[in-house]
Amino acid sequence: MSEKIALTPATHTTPPAKFSHGVKKGNILQVAGQVGFLPAVEGQPPTPAGPTLREQTLQTFANVRAILEEGGATWDDVMMMRVYLTDVDHFAEMNEIYNAYFEEQGLNEAPAARTTVYVGLPKGLLIEIDALAVLS
Amino acid sequence: MSEKIALTPATHTTPPAKFSHGVKKGNILQVAGQVGFLPAVEGQPPTPAGPTLREQTLQTFANVRAILEEGGATWDDVMMMRVYLTDVDHFAEMNEIYNAYFEEQGLNEAPAARTTVYVGLPKGLLIEIDALAVLS
Amino acid sequence: MSEKIALTPATHTTPPAKFSHGVKKGNILQVAGQVGFLPAVEGQPPTPAGPTLREQTLQTFANVRAILEEGGATWDDVMMMRVYLTDVDHFAEMNEIYNAYFEEQGLNEAPAARTTVYVGLPKGLLIEIDALAVLS
Repeated sequence: MSEKIALTPATHTTPPAKFSHGVKKGNILQVAGQVGFLPAVEGQPPTPAGPTLREQTLQTFANVRAILEEGGATWDDVMMMRVYLTDVDHFAEMNEIYNAYFEEQGLNEAPAARTTVYVGLPKGLLIEIDALAVLS
Repeated sequence: MSEKIALTPATHTTPPAKFSHGVKKGNILQVAGQVGFLPAVEGQPPTPAGPTLREQTLQTFANVRAILEEGGATWDDVMMMRVYLTDVDHFAEMNEIYNAYFEEQGLNEAPAARTTVYVGLPKGLLIEIDALAVLS
Repeated sequence: MSEKIALTPATHTTPPAKFSHGVKKGNILQVAGQVGFLPAVEGQPPTPAGPTLREQTLQTFANVRAILEEGGATWDDVMMMRVYLTDVDHFAEMNEIYNAYFEEQGLNEAPAARTTVYVGLPKGLLIEIDALAVLS
C-alpha cells in the first residue's frame, strides 16, 4: 500500500489547473505534459525559453528532468517519452536535439521508447513532452 | 500472476471495436478513451450528452469514473489523465470545468498528472479523456 | 531491482533517433510508436507496406507484436493500445481490420483498452500504434 505523491519542482510554474506536474506511487512515476517554459518568476506569466524548437526542446527536457529528480528518478528510469510536435517538418531537427541531449546525459540503460505525433498546441509552443518512468 | 479483466460498466455503450472500456491487471488499471456519450439505450446509437464542452466534459468524467469504480478504484488512484480537445480555444473553459469537478470530488491524494493536446475527433465530439490508475 | 532492457526485433528498421522500439522493466513493457514499415532491408530507407490503410495497419500490428514477443509478451498482456490515425474517415475501416485481426489472434483474456485520435503523421503514413503491456 503506497500513497500517491505530487512532484512539484520549486522552479516550475503553477499548473494551469488542478493537476500535478508529476506523481509517484510505488515504483511508477508519471510526468505530466511539459513544455518549454522557463523557471517560474513570481508575478509573471509562464514564458517559453524562446521561439525556436531548440530552445523549447532543451527547456522541456530540463522541466521533465526536474520532475524525475524530484521523485528520485533519472532518465534511465524512463520507459516512454511522448513527444508532441506541431509541425512534421520539425521531426529531423527534434531528433538531432534529442540525440545530442541524451548522448550528453550518458544513459546507462536502454533508451526509453518514444512516440512522436503532430498535434495542435497553445500559440507559441512548438513541443510538449510527457514521460512514464518505472523506478528500480 | 494476475489475470487481465475487462471493466465494463452497465451504463456504457458497446465499444465500436474489439477493445475494452477499461482493463485491470494486478494493481494497474487503464481506462480507454472516453467521450461524452450518455448511458447506453438499447437499440439507439451512442449519443453525446449535448453539443457544449461543459456537457461533454462532465459526461466524460462520469464515464471515466464509472470504469474506475468498476475496477475498485477512485479518482485518487489516477496517475495520469490524457485530455484530447479539438480546439485550443477550449483550454480555459475545460480547465474551469476540470477544477470545479475535482474540487467537488474531494481528492485525498495528489491530483493526477495531465497532458492536454489538440487533435481531431469524430464529428460532434469536443473532448476525449483516458486515464491510467495505479491501485494501492 | 530490475533493469530496463531494450526490445529490438531483428526485422525492425533502426529508430530514427536515440530511442528503443520497446523497453521492458520488471513486468512493464512499453512498445514505442510503430508504423507500417516493412522489415528492414540493409542499405534501404524504411518503406511502408503499401499506400493503403489495410496494408499499413496489418504491418503495424506485426511490428508491435514482434516487440511484444521479443519481450516475452503476447497480445493478451497488452493493457492499452493508442491508435493514431490521420483521417476521421478511416475509423470504420480501421475498426474492421482491428476486429478481424484480433479475432484471428484468438485472445484468451480481455481485449486491451484503446484510445484513437486523429493527428498529423509523416507523409505517406496513415496509422501509428503504441502499446503498454503488463506481464503476468
